[in-house]
Amino acid sequence: MRLRKIKDADLKLKEYPQYVVFNPEENKGRWAYRFPEPRPLHLEIGMGKGKFIIEQAKRNIDVNFVGCEVSETIALKAARKIAETNPPNIKIINCPAQELKQMFSAGEIAKIYLNFSDPWPKNRHEKRRLTSDYFMEMYKHILSEDGVIEFKTDNPGFFEYSLTQFNNHRFRFLEISFDLHASGREDIVTTEYEEKFIQNRKKIYYLKVKKWTSKKE
Amino acid sequence: MRLRKIKDADLKLKEYPQYVVFNPEENKGRWAYRFPEPRPLHLEIGMGKGKFIIEQAKRNIDVNFVGCEVSETIALKAARKIAETNPPNIKIINCPAQELKQMFSAGEIAKIYLNFSDPWPKNRHEKRRLTSDYFMEMYKHILSEDGVIEFKTDNPGFFEYSLTQFNNHRFRFLEISFDLHASGREDIVTTEYEEKFIQNRKKIYYLKVKKWTSKKE
Repeated sequence: MRLRKIKDADLKLKEYPQYVVFNPEENKGRWAYRFPEPRPLHLEIGMGKGKFIIEQAKRNIDVNFVGCEVSETIALKAARKIAETNPPNIKIINCPAQELKQMFSAGEIAKIYLNFSDPWPKNRHEKRRLTSDYFMEMYKHILSEDGVIEFKTDNPGFFEYSLTQFNNHRFRFLEISFDLHASGREDIVTTEYEEKFIQNRKKIYYLKVKKWTSKKE
Repeated sequence: MRLRKIKDADLKLKEYPQYVVFNPEENKGRWAYRFPEPRPLHLEIGMGKGKFIIEQAKRNIDVNFVGCEVSETIALKAARKIAETNPPNIKIINCPAQELKQMFSAGEIAKIYLNFSDPWPKNRHEKRRLTSDYFMEMYKHILSEDGVIEFKTDNPGFFEYSLTQFNNHRFRFLEISFDLHASGREDIVTTEYEEKFIQNRKKIYYLKVKKWTSKKE
């Protein structure tokens, strides 16, 4: 997503302390208490301008949501949009995804959303992909025992790669689709990107996985 | 594949005792000794008219191949084609895939090929799919510790299903492609079907998996 940077976006983010968490590592292990009610925690990594998380938060008032966005400009746009409806169950972290490991303790997250992450198609950029080894291990660490990940992309190469990664890191596939919006499901929450893809009849790849538990299933 | 049945195909198969194995369950655990040389055993389930296995056998003279085909007519066509070049390293079994479990002992197979198996798209026919639970457990049983399966299909729904099945039954993904013939690989051996698909520019889905070993990897 290319967009014009907002000047002093980092300072302007400070105007939204009810949503933006400025000391996220201090919340490690006690995110539940940053919200009005301690509820299961869902994390969207790469929240963009917030369409998806705002809709999720509205539909699931019994869940607390944390959105992570690396760009200050985009995080600010999300904060402004969130302020329009003032939901009680959304927080924003403005940081690179790599740092999330320091911000959540083991098992603190019930669900992670990865929506249209940058596919980083060149091999030398593999480590930047949100489904590379580092992130797989991080997700396993911060996810609860029954923790779930929902992954969406429009990029077939990135989907191929991610299927292998989720499999090799021993996540269990729960649902898969090579054309999510042709699947007849009515519970799909979309992102800004996704709306454009649907208009252009571009196929969306979808995967839902959970951690294998040590228990015999 | 719809084709005219050959009359008395079962009797005509008897004319090819050098290829067709009429008592396959008696070979259980000692297939290696049915061939001139005891070598690693590869099994194609649904060999069709034999194009794939004949080419594989020619390229890999250090491997012994067994092809399974349920249709007598098609098995006979395969036998006739094999007889043209008289390779020492191919045997044919004419039986339903379900019965293969009685014909191989644990760990006897190094590699299984599933090429363009019938996708059986209706839910009530799930058990007939060659990647349904029964077959997954059979493959794990007859495959050696490092045993590999190569799976090809042109059917996206069947590929979605099979990805989930291989994952849920704890096979490890080694290679995946949503468009095999665009991948630039030069070592691809094709089936009769596949040649038509390539001509029609239809995408071929490909997955290569291995058994997880109990060893730490």
